[in-house]
Amino acid sequence: MTTPLSPSFRAGRHFLQIPGPSNVPDRVLRAMDRPTIDHRGPEFAQLGRECLDGMKTIFRTDDRGHVFIFPASGTGAWEAAIVNTLNPGDRVLMFETGHFAVLWRRIAEKFGLEVDFVPGDWRNGVAIPTVEERLRADTAHAIKAVMCVHLETSTGILSRIQDVRRALDDAQHPALLMVDVVSSLGTTVFRQADWGVDVAIAASQKGLMLPPGLGFNAVSEKALAASRQARMPRSYWGWEEMLAFNAKGSFPYTPATGMLFGLRESLQMLLHDEGLAHVLQRHQRLAEAARAAVGAWGLELLGQNPAEWCNVVTAVLLPPGCDEAEFRRIVLQNFDLSLGAGLGKVAGRVFRIGHLGDFNDLMLCGTLCGVEMGLVKFGVTLRGSGIQAAMARLGRGNEFGSRAATPGGSGS
Amino acid sequence: MTTPLSPSFRAGRHFLQIPGPSNVPDRVLRAMDRPTIDHRGPEFAQLGRECLDGMKTIFRTDDRGHVFIFPASGTGAWEAAIVNTLNPGDRVLMFETGHFAVLWRRIAEKFGLEVDFVPGDWRNGVAIPTVEERLRADTAHAIKAVMCVHLETSTGILSRIQDVRRALDDAQHPALLMVDVVSSLGTTVFRQADWGVDVAIAASQKGLMLPPGLGFNAVSEKALAASRQARMPRSYWGWEEMLAFNAKGSFPYTPATGMLFGLRESLQMLLHDEGLAHVLQRHQRLAEAARAAVGAWGLELLGQNPAEWCNVVTAVLLPPGCDEAEFRRIVLQNFDLSLGAGLGKVAGRVFRIGHLGDFNDLMLCGTLCGVEMGLVKFGVTLRGSGIQAAMARLGRGNEFGSRAATPGGSGS
Amino acid sequence: MTTPLSPSFRAGRHFLQIPGPSNVPDRVLRAMDRPTIDHRGPEFAQLGRECLDGMKTIFRTDDRGHVFIFPASGTGAWEAAIVNTLNPGDRVLMFETGHFAVLWRRIAEKFGLEVDFVPGDWRNGVAIPTVEERLRADTAHAIKAVMCVHLETSTGILSRIQDVRRALDDAQHPALLMVDVVSSLGTTVFRQADWGVDVAIAASQKGLMLPPGLGFNAVSEKALAASRQARMPRSYWGWEEMLAFNAKGSFPYTPATGMLFGLRESLQMLLHDEGLAHVLQRHQRLAEAARAAVGAWGLELLGQNPAEWCNVVTAVLLPPGCDEAEFRRIVLQNFDLSLGAGLGKVAGRVFRIGHLGDFNDLMLCGTLCGVEMGLVKFGVTLRGSGIQAAMARLGRGNEFGSRAATPGGSGS
Amino acid sequence: MTTPLSPSFRAGRHFLQIPGPSNVPDRVLRAMDRPTIDHRGPEFAQLGRECLDGMKTIFRTDDRGHVFIFPASGTGAWEAAIVNTLNPGDRVLMFETGHFAVLWRRIAEKFGLEVDFVPGDWRNGVAIPTVEERLRADTAHAIKAVMCVHLETSTGILSRIQDVRRALDDAQHPALLMVDVVSSLGTTVFRQADWGVDVAIAASQKGLMLPPGLGFNAVSEKALAASRQARMPRSYWGWEEMLAFNAKGSFPYTPATGMLFGLRESLQMLLHDEGLAHVLQRHQRLAEAARAAVGAWGLELLGQNPAEWCNVVTAVLLPPGCDEAEFRRIVLQNFDLSLGAGLGKVAGRVFRIGHLGDFNDLMLCGTLCGVEMGLVKFGVTLRGSGIQAAMARLGRGNEFGSRAATPGGSGS
Repeated sequence: MTTPLSPSFRAGRHFLQIPGPSNVPDRVLRAMDRPTIDHRGPEFAQLGRECLDGMKTIFRTDDRGHVFIFPASGTGAWEAAIVNTLNPGDRVLMFETGHFAVLWRRIAEKFGLEVDFVPGDWRNGVAIPTVEERLRADTAHAIKAVMCVHLETSTGILSRIQDVRRALDDAQHPALLMVDVVSSLGTTVFRQADWGVDVAIAASQKGLMLPPGLGFNAVSEKALAASRQARMPRSYWGWEEMLAFNAKGSFPYTPATGMLFGLRESLQMLLHDEGLAHVLQRHQRLAEAARAAVGAWGLELLGQNPAEWCNVVTAVLLPPGCDEAEFRRIVLQNFDLSLGAGLGKVAGRVFRIGHLGDFNDLMLCGTLCGVEMGLVKFGVTLRGSGIQAAMARLGRGNEFGSRAATPGGSGS
Repeated sequence: MTTPLSPSFRAGRHFLQIPGPSNVPDRVLRAMDRPTIDHRGPEFAQLGRECLDGMKTIFRTDDRGHVFIFPASGTGAWEAAIVNTLNPGDRVLMFETGHFAVLWRRIAEKFGLEVDFVPGDWRNGVAIPTVEERLRADTAHAIKAVMCVHLETSTGILSRIQDVRRALDDAQHPALLMVDVVSSLGTTVFRQADWGVDVAIAASQKGLMLPPGLGFNAVSEKALAASRQARMPRSYWGWEEMLAFNAKGSFPYTPATGMLFGLRESLQMLLHDEGLAHVLQRHQRLAEAARAAVGAWGLELLGQNPAEWCNVVTAVLLPPGCDEAEFRRIVLQNFDLSLGAGLGKVAGRVFRIGHLGDFNDLMLCGTLCGVEMGLVKFGVTLRGSGIQAAMARLGRGNEFGSRAATPGGSGS
Repeated sequence: MTTPLSPSFRAGRHFLQIPGPSNVPDRVLRAMDRPTIDHRGPEFAQLGRECLDGMKTIFRTDDRGHVFIFPASGTGAWEAAIVNTLNPGDRVLMFETGHFAVLWRRIAEKFGLEVDFVPGDWRNGVAIPTVEERLRADTAHAIKAVMCVHLETSTGILSRIQDVRRALDDAQHPALLMVDVVSSLGTTVFRQADWGVDVAIAASQKGLMLPPGLGFNAVSEKALAASRQARMPRSYWGWEEMLAFNAKGSFPYTPATGMLFGLRESLQMLLHDEGLAHVLQRHQRLAEAARAAVGAWGLELLGQNPAEWCNVVTAVLLPPGCDEAEFRRIVLQNFDLSLGAGLGKVAGRVFRIGHLGDFNDLMLCGTLCGVEMGLVKFGVTLRGSGIQAAMARLGRGNEFGSRAATPGGSGS
Repeated sequence: MTTPLSPSFRAGRHFLQIPGPSNVPDRVLRAMDRPTIDHRGPEFAQLGRECLDGMKTIFRTDDRGHVFIFPASGTGAWEAAIVNTLNPGDRVLMFETGHFAVLWRRIAEKFGLEVDFVPGDWRNGVAIPTVEERLRADTAHAIKAVMCVHLETSTGILSRIQDVRRALDDAQHPALLMVDVVSSLGTTVFRQADWGVDVAIAASQKGLMLPPGLGFNAVSEKALAASRQARMPRSYWGWEEMLAFNAKGSFPYTPATGMLFGLRESLQMLLHDEGLAHVLQRHQRLAEAARAAVGAWGLELLGQNPAEWCNVVTAVLLPPGCDEAEFRRIVLQNFDLSLGAGLGKVAGRVFRIGHLGDFNDLMLCGTLCGVEMGLVKFGVTLRGSGIQAAMARLGRGNEFGSRAATPGGSGS
């Protein structure tokens, strides 16, 4: 029996392995832990510029585009994308790839958009043939925007944005391409300008390794042009006023200075200290190890298409009859590990292991051990050891001999 | 000559005496400096409830009302008040008391409201007779809301909200009363329920002593009822979905957890450790001392009516011909003191001394010394010493004898 | 192949699994992160008293005893124990249980003590029969002190202090009993007064979960009496002056205020939030799991006697021919895990896994995975999976079925 | 009447104006607020080297000298200087310049030194003619060390170390020169090698702007040579073993890693960001302003010789009959300002204003206002306003006209 933990105290570090908010590095927390500065003074202007410039690098936005930073959650950034570019009654094409796609659609409808919502089973990404078909059929160009979620945090499925772009191009369709990259930014290859994304929506609490509190719109020149025509009422989210202020490193209303202190530090880590290429590679490697564990347990991934598996979260189907909420409760209670819940359509059946942000091999190992022990405690019969499979991926050559331990040379 | 300070380094503490963001107590910064927690877990629910409940106490909201917390600046909270309660084309009554009243009006207009904007000279608060007159004249009840700023941070002038309420009552007018208490909350007496305020708008970075990043709506039952009829498109700011989530201590989208850690600590300080009555009394006393300094210098306050002077900021008119931006630059350069700029109509002529939040006697003294030395350095001829007058207010009995220093008994 | 990590940057948390300094909880770091206070003022006196009282509870010192707190490392506290109680030329009985016993002996000799150093093989604790024999033989009571290390951090071996006490009592020998509890305090049952320990020596960076910087002497009435006769020159370490100041919550020279802020928080966690009994039980459970891993790997523990295995560190013998420094280098390089080196006599052959302080199941799992992957990478042939054995201990019932994963009831 | 402050809560920042521990910059606190690292690993070696090298620059030690860093207070560093270089029975020359000189003498005597203690009135520094006389008279070179306090924190008096050196040279006397620079290091010109100081003793909590917890010995080649002959028992303080470890950036026993994180940041600020020359100049300027205030109040400085006034602390005589403890109590109670007590011979009559470390103009102004208001409240009749005089020094040209305030040009 494990130690009964008191309700109010846990020794050691909590394992926060929900798929965001991700673990915030100490460096970032410490950078935020400083007195506020005058948001109209010269020191702030420097901070503002560093954040705005750094974010363009992260999004890979080109010089004619811009990144907008809002004191808001990602939900606000979704709304910002809509109210800046579209008009009530506009038709848009969206895809039911998972919970967050559903939520975004709901916002679109609240603002009076006509949503063509392509249904989905939550086990696959955006169906490119359907995109092609719909766009080709829309000869009148009634569709004003194609809106999709790059990395569905609720399912761990990555949609192929480049193929969506190609479909638009092939159909010579002028619709805007708007993409939710909340979970993919800083964890997965994404190139706003190269991929022809007009509005990319992100937030602070995932790959950027910050607490929640900032939302982002990275926009193309075409989206900026659209915003000058768009007539939805807007103020807080309005790009136009922001642009003018941002040119001087400032903001039209009081910015979340503490969050920007953190963002500057996070950008320093991602772009300079580790390097974005290495960051993405690290995420991929850890995700492969997590999936190796799931396979070894004999459990099923929610995502059916290996080409769509993602770097950020592993969504696992529990065997029929299991209640994922109860499973997660056991894991939290016994191992102080927070896992992601099943959301929406897959609530009750799917749990999610987040492995993004400021994360490494041994943190993943601890996480997978917690899941493995939790599964056993919960009564799931496992085919084999997941952690063993994960270590094999992480360490390579991890094979046990049958003889007593003997030295095997200098290693490595 | 003062020490030439290098552009990049200042020894000692910066004096951030803009009228908000205010100084954040170390305790609050440290409370925010901790790992994010699962916003869907039990620990968060406790945090959420403590913040929501504590904010009701700060606003003095009654049991049928509610406080909404947004990851946003105060500007967002202004917008939230509008989009939740009004309809496009609604007529509202607003008052030109200063810069922030002007900004709020602009938002109202962006959302299609018809604003009756009562002009003002920025040297007086809301003119109660005008309020009475307008409301009496509106027998058709076309005016759907009366919207005013309680404490105009740009002018340091406090409007009499209770008198506005009385005017509504006397006219038996059903308009909603919406009040910006961004700078007054936690610094000045305010009682949302008792005063019949339907929506009070606030933000984190003033009397709550937090960094910017949270906006608040404290609303009455009547406002909640109005919101159920209001048809402006809204999602992020929508009260309805928030209410359902808040009942469980959670939020419909990822909350700014770090800010809530800070808010809980701030509420602990305001409501328990110091006590709100003492907090307000402290602000009043420090404000009186600041005004005593201005009087002794022979300079003029922007506010013409002593009954409308506020606890939070002292707005000072420089003599004609002086450029306040240059004055503030000198003060910042020489004494590492940030003062508030003149905004809008009074830009160039007025500087503002913030004295709110986590602030005490000697911090005020240091601030006033910086202003006094800066005025002299800038070339303003002063009538007398302001710091001396301020100390007389702070210490009482501070009179100098003409003889050599001699002991005068055991004191106090 | 593992990701080649850059020399200067590691994502995620470092695993500091040396057997001290241990991981410092965020709460303790944050408690230390505050401005210094006047060490002669009333607020400090309260702090001083809380620390002094709390430390008596941790040591289980009785009312006639006292705990001395020095701004120093544990090495300083060793020296303090000697210079306060003994005279040059005094004979003392010490035991070669490991590296730290050797170091302490060296200090004793530097201060002119005649050390009877009972040789040892570093694989067993203090030999009680030898203690008995030596004391019985010393009819002249030439031995002034018996000095032993409770928990040898270099070997992971726990000596039976109660048996040493019994030997003293049986021989009716008046020697002082001095015990190094640097690694056992706060991790292992220890009762200074009940066990008749005259001087217990400790430090901040192990079970107290603080950074290094404080040394402690917990002393009995008998030791205090001895100190009044002892003639070694002393000033910094002198107990007498400390006692007078401590009575008022203060110290004879500037105390390490920041460390005391941390100590107060740590005491709050150990004594109140988790409770010392649970803390010790948690350490024992994690140590058993670590040893289960070593057994499963087919590697040998340094400690030969299971009754002497400790809660804090697991010292593991590498197979002959392996270089532990190279092994640890590989582990650090590949998995960002710091392990303890082999020290002194066992340098080159033994590595040590620390599992003390602010530590939990999944941190241990991550650690053991890192060791396991490192062993494989280093080329050691393992008998089986250590992490699997550890999980079996931590989770119980962790057995894999041969069939495909199926639900197995409600679990727990 | 001032606001009655509750015993347990003070809003705003405490003014810690004792002459050390000084205010710790946020940057330094934050640098210390991070997990401990392995003190035997490569990252630590880098940290150790940076601290050791930086301290040599601060002390201006030459290449043949060395700086030793102890986890200890300055008292420990005094002891270290003695036990490493002298033998019991050695004769040393010391000077009663104040409280800390008396305390150091007491330590010397505890270690069996024969102290020639030149009496003093605590109002003047080391009497150079006496030094010359004593050294010339000591033709047998019985005096093994001349030991003096550079900046007596208890009196604010600076002794002329270069003149002491000259006296030694003139007398061709081989005695070691040991100097306590606890308060002068980082605040006052000091050049260990150029001035021929053999052992300089310092601590972390003054000009280095750290919390207490580190003691330093900066030593010359001659002192190192002496230590190889010195026979006092020593271990913790022993230089020899330290030297060997320091060569690799490490320490013979567990170092206070957290303090070293802080020291590295402090060195960065002192040596690079502000620059040591500017640091010293800033201290001098602020000290002059503080003394201007005292003069204007009509109070007397303890130091009688202006050439010996220091940069760090202003010791003020209260008029006869006043109790400084009661005065300081009033100041702390009413203005949350901690001042330094009168120590030893001048207890009860002298209070001390600390103005060292991370300090600036407006912090000094706040401090002096608190003292001025406190003096008035305490009942001392003042000749004039001290703060006004201080501002005149800080701002220059601060003269009030008799006419109403008018602009006077562009200023500066």
